[in-house]
Amino acid sequence: MEIKEFSRIKKFFRPLTSQRMGAMELLDDAALVPIKKTDSIVVSTDALVEKIHFHSDERADFIARKALRTNLSDLAAMGAKPFAYNLGLILGKRKLGNIDQWLNLFSKGLAADQKKFGIELIGGDTVTSFGPTSICISIFGTPNPEGSLLRSGAKVGDGIFVSGTIGDAALGLILRSNSSLSYSSKGNSYCISRYRIPRPRIDLGLALGEVASAAMDISDGLFQDLNHLCGASDVGASVWANKIPLSKEVNAFVTKNKFSIEQVITGGDDYELIFTAPVNKETSIFNMARVTKTRITRIGTVQSGRGISIFDENGDIIPVVKGGYSHD
Amino acid sequence: MEIKEFSRIKKFFRPLTSQRMGAMELLDDAALVPIKKTDSIVVSTDALVEKIHFHSDERADFIARKALRTNLSDLAAMGAKPFAYNLGLILGKRKLGNIDQWLNLFSKGLAADQKKFGIELIGGDTVTSFGPTSICISIFGTPNPEGSLLRSGAKVGDGIFVSGTIGDAALGLILRSNSSLSYSSKGNSYCISRYRIPRPRIDLGLALGEVASAAMDISDGLFQDLNHLCGASDVGASVWANKIPLSKEVNAFVTKNKFSIEQVITGGDDYELIFTAPVNKETSIFNMARVTKTRITRIGTVQSGRGISIFDENGDIIPVVKGGYSHD
Repeated sequence: MEIKEFSRIKKFFRPLTSQRMGAMELLDDAALVPIKKTDSIVVSTDALVEKIHFHSDERADFIARKALRTNLSDLAAMGAKPFAYNLGLILGKRKLGNIDQWLNLFSKGLAADQKKFGIELIGGDTVTSFGPTSICISIFGTPNPEGSLLRSGAKVGDGIFVSGTIGDAALGLILRSNSSLSYSSKGNSYCISRYRIPRPRIDLGLALGEVASAAMDISDGLFQDLNHLCGASDVGASVWANKIPLSKEVNAFVTKNKFSIEQVITGGDDYELIFTAPVNKETSIFNMARVTKTRITRIGTVQSGRGISIFDENGDIIPVVKGGYSHD
Repeated sequence: MEIKEFSRIKKFFRPLTSQRMGAMELLDDAALVPIKKTDSIVVSTDALVEKIHFHSDERADFIARKALRTNLSDLAAMGAKPFAYNLGLILGKRKLGNIDQWLNLFSKGLAADQKKFGIELIGGDTVTSFGPTSICISIFGTPNPEGSLLRSGAKVGDGIFVSGTIGDAALGLILRSNSSLSYSSKGNSYCISRYRIPRPRIDLGLALGEVASAAMDISDGLFQDLNHLCGASDVGASVWANKIPLSKEVNAFVTKNKFSIEQVITGGDDYELIFTAPVNKETSIFNMARVTKTRITRIGTVQSGRGISIFDENGDIIPVVKGGYSHD
C-alpha cells in the first residue's frame, strides 16, 4: 500500500469509524466487532460497478449513498437491524479526475447515511485500478427478534403487498438522460432522485417480522423479483395491474402512453419491499404502514402452481415480455 | 441480475455453502450466520484487482486461493479463528475468455481452501464489468480467547520474531517473468509457488494469543510492515539483517548478488507473521514453533524512539531506500 493510500484512509475513512465498533481506526489487520445479545448476524454484500450500476458522471456522495442503501435494502428485506458495514473500494485512476476531491464527497455521502441509519464503518480495503471504479460493501445486522423474513415462506391464499410506489426509478433513469420527456421539473427531479437515492425500508422490515410470511426487496423489477419469491416458496401469484401503486409522476406518463405498465413492473431500482402475509393480518399491516409512515398496498394473491399472472382491470392477462431489469 | 448469472451462482457457488452456516443456498437477500459463544467477531476485507494483485494469465484456482489466503493471513495476524467468508466477484467480461470454464476452476480453488481452513461461503455478489476482474472477499472469524493480537502492543525490550522465510515471494515474482534467472527448476517453482499461494499462519496466530505483545502479517514487505507495527505501538526497532530467515533458494541468489537483502525486506507478498513478545517468552515461542510446525526466528529487538534500523554483521546500518512494496 502506498503512503498516499494510508493518508487517504486516515483523512477520509477513519472519521467514519469509532472505537466502540472495533474498527481500531482502520490501523490493524482486521476489525474486532462487538456482538451483543444475538446468536446470529445478518450479512449482505453488493458490488456496484461504474457504468453498469452507476453513471461515471454521478456525484460521488450519491454513489456512496446508493451503494450503502442497496445493501441496507437487503437487510430491510430480511427484517434485520443494520449496525455496521465495511467497504472494498476499487478506485478507477483514469476516471475520477481529482481522486481526493472525489473521495471527500464520497466519504461525506457515507457519513450522512451512517448517521441516518445508525451504522458505522468497521473496515475494508482501498485499491486503485486502471478499470472502472467499483464499490463492494458488506453490511451487518442483527436478525429480527420475531423471525427473519425469508423469501421461502409464502403460502397459497396469502396477500401480496408492496411498499411505496413502483416504477419511479425506472422512469427516473429515462428522464435522467432525456429531460425533454419531462412534464414538470418537480416530477422529473422526484423520479431521478428515486433512481439515485433509494429509500431502504428498514423500519417496515423490522415491523414485518411479526406478520409477513415471505419478503424480499425489489431491485431487478417487481415482476422478476416476485417470481423469485414465488419460486423460493414453490407457489404462483396473481397480480392486479391497476392495484400497483404509482406515484402521480409515473401515473401521468402511463396515462399519456409514454411509459407502460410493463416498464413499471420490469424496471429496476425500486428498492421497495414486496412481501406476503395471511389476509387476516391486513389490519395489522395497514397499522404498521401508519406507524412506519410507509405506504403499503395489496397488489395480489399467492396462488398454487408456478408463475406470475398480471391481470388488467377487465380480468385479461397482460403479457410481460421482458423478465426483468438486468444490472449485469 | 441475468438468468445466466443465477445459473452460474447455482452451479459454481451454491456447492460452497451449507445450511448450517445460514447462506440459504445464496437464494435470499442476505445470509443469517450463526454466532456461538462469542461476544465479538473479527472481520477483514481485501480487494484484489487483475493486473495489480494478480496476473491476467494466472490460473483461476490459484487466484481464488490467493484471494482467500491473503484474507486468512489478516485473521492469522489477529490470532483469530476463521469460520466463514463472502465473495464480491466482479468478472471482467473481455478478459476471461470462457467465463464458465474460469468460474469452474475458480470455484474449485475456493473449495480446496475452504476444506483446508475449515471455512464456508456465506454469500456475496457476482457482477460483470468491461474492466479488469476484481475480487473482494470479507472473512469472518472468532477472536483469540487469550486476547486478539493487535499491532499496538509492542514494548521496548521485546524481541521481534518472524515466521517462515522472508523474500521467497518477491524472488518468485521475478522468476515468474524471467525463468532464465533461475539456478534450479525446483528452487524456481518453490519461489513462484510462494508468490502464488501464500501460507496463512492460522495455527501460529491462535497459539500466539498467550505470548505475543503485538503482531501483523507481512504483505507489503518486512521493512514497511514492521514500521507500521512500530508506529502503532509508538516504538522503534533494531533488526539484524543476518538473522532474517532465508530459504536456501533466496540465500543462493543473495550470495551470488542476484538478489539483495533490500529486496528481501522490501519485497511484498510474504504473508508471514511478524510479532513481538517479551524475551522471557522465547522458550514458549520456540515450543509453539515445534507444535505448529512453523519456523520462527528472532530477528531483532524493540527500541525506544521511532524508526527501524537494519544492521549488517559488522554492526553497520544498511540504508533501505525503498520503503516497501506497493500493490497499488
